[in-house]
Amino acid sequence: MKLFLGNKAYSSWSLRGWLAARHSGLPFEEVTVPLYDEEWSNRREGDEFAPSGGKVPILWDGDDIVVWDSLAIIDYLNEKTGGTRGYWPDDMAARAMARSMAAEMHSSFAALRRNHSMNIRRIYPAAELLPEVQADVIRILQIWAEARARFGGEGDFLFGEWSAADIMFAPVVTRFVTYSIPLPRFALPYCQAVISHPHMQEWIGGAQAEDWVIEKFEGPVEG
Amino acid sequence: MKLFLGNKAYSSWSLRGWLAARHSGLPFEEVTVPLYDEEWSNRREGDEFAPSGGKVPILWDGDDIVVWDSLAIIDYLNEKTGGTRGYWPDDMAARAMARSMAAEMHSSFAALRRNHSMNIRRIYPAAELLPEVQADVIRILQIWAEARARFGGEGDFLFGEWSAADIMFAPVVTRFVTYSIPLPRFALPYCQAVISHPHMQEWIGGAQAEDWVIEKFEGPVEG
Repeated sequence: MKLFLGNKAYSSWSLRGWLAARHSGLPFEEVTVPLYDEEWSNRREGDEFAPSGGKVPILWDGDDIVVWDSLAIIDYLNEKTGGTRGYWPDDMAARAMARSMAAEMHSSFAALRRNHSMNIRRIYPAAELLPEVQADVIRILQIWAEARARFGGEGDFLFGEWSAADIMFAPVVTRFVTYSIPLPRFALPYCQAVISHPHMQEWIGGAQAEDWVIEKFEGPVEG
Repeated sequence: MKLFLGNKAYSSWSLRGWLAARHSGLPFEEVTVPLYDEEWSNRREGDEFAPSGGKVPILWDGDDIVVWDSLAIIDYLNEKTGGTRGYWPDDMAARAMARSMAAEMHSSFAALRRNHSMNIRRIYPAAELLPEVQADVIRILQIWAEARARFGGEGDFLFGEWSAADIMFAPVVTRFVTYSIPLPRFALPYCQAVISHPHMQEWIGGAQAEDWVIEKFEGPVEG
């Protein structure tokens, strides 16, 4: 398998696709397609056009299989691994909730995503949030809390074990941390667990090691 | 099962959830949650807040299962019916493509959705499209053409038989028709097949029968 990715520091959708691929336990080759500066300035998350006009992440498997969306990559690899890797929780009610949360992450939270672009290499001091960003944060915390309370059990993650729901929300966790967004008590150990997950650590290490920097990239708050 | 829906004439995400439920062959009760005028004016598609603050569509199954997103409803019902209903194509490469297309529809084409809100009850004359809408239309036609060419076979739909990919694109088909968007030759029989599908006919009939009208709703072009 070959996985096409954007820049590790900035491309949040690439992070989701890569975590999905890493979780499969299958070997894959990474191909980095840097985002251009002029494209960056116009980009929306989930719409990261590579120079070729294609999007990232894209998973190629053999000659005739191309999967070009993070959620589709999750389900493709879940099937390819025969459902043995725990992408989705075993319990039917938990799985229904996990799928709903992953899908909501996939199509929503535009204000948070637009105003707080992922940048894994910088920490920004706390700043007042726009009301629409605050609404996104509240909604995310509400569904995290509900998942943890109903299905978290003794585990560290939303549905106990690391799952597709955590993979989809991982770039939200990094934003909560790097933008110093104030969090309620219950959310701190969860964010900590996500950041500490070995796959996340591997990605963050890769982002730190990248020498490719978008010089003009600035978050909404200067660090 | 209970399915919470918005207005049939205007709520494109409800259409997707309803088509998914109808495709299961399982009985379900419909609960309509009309969208308020003042919310309508601020609404984005995929973000249709019911008065309760909840979104539509929402599927309730028994006491503890709630599925609140159209794509999650598709996968939930696919599992509940044991994969017997053909939500996704059998062929692995076709399924990978169908999942990618459904996911792309789920998160993309904002310009088309924003500028051409679904209104099943009106026909608008052809008008010049904004460049970003034109780009969305071109991309949609490109992936439709590829799916039809690779996997359409003798069938009428994107992957031959009616599938989740058609369900996700059904509200795009209605827009192409009601906004009189010029289409290449290959797309006409496909749009015709979608509109003629018995489930679509049932929904359109329901939309026509609704006496609830948003008086101030106007498309970008007056019919």
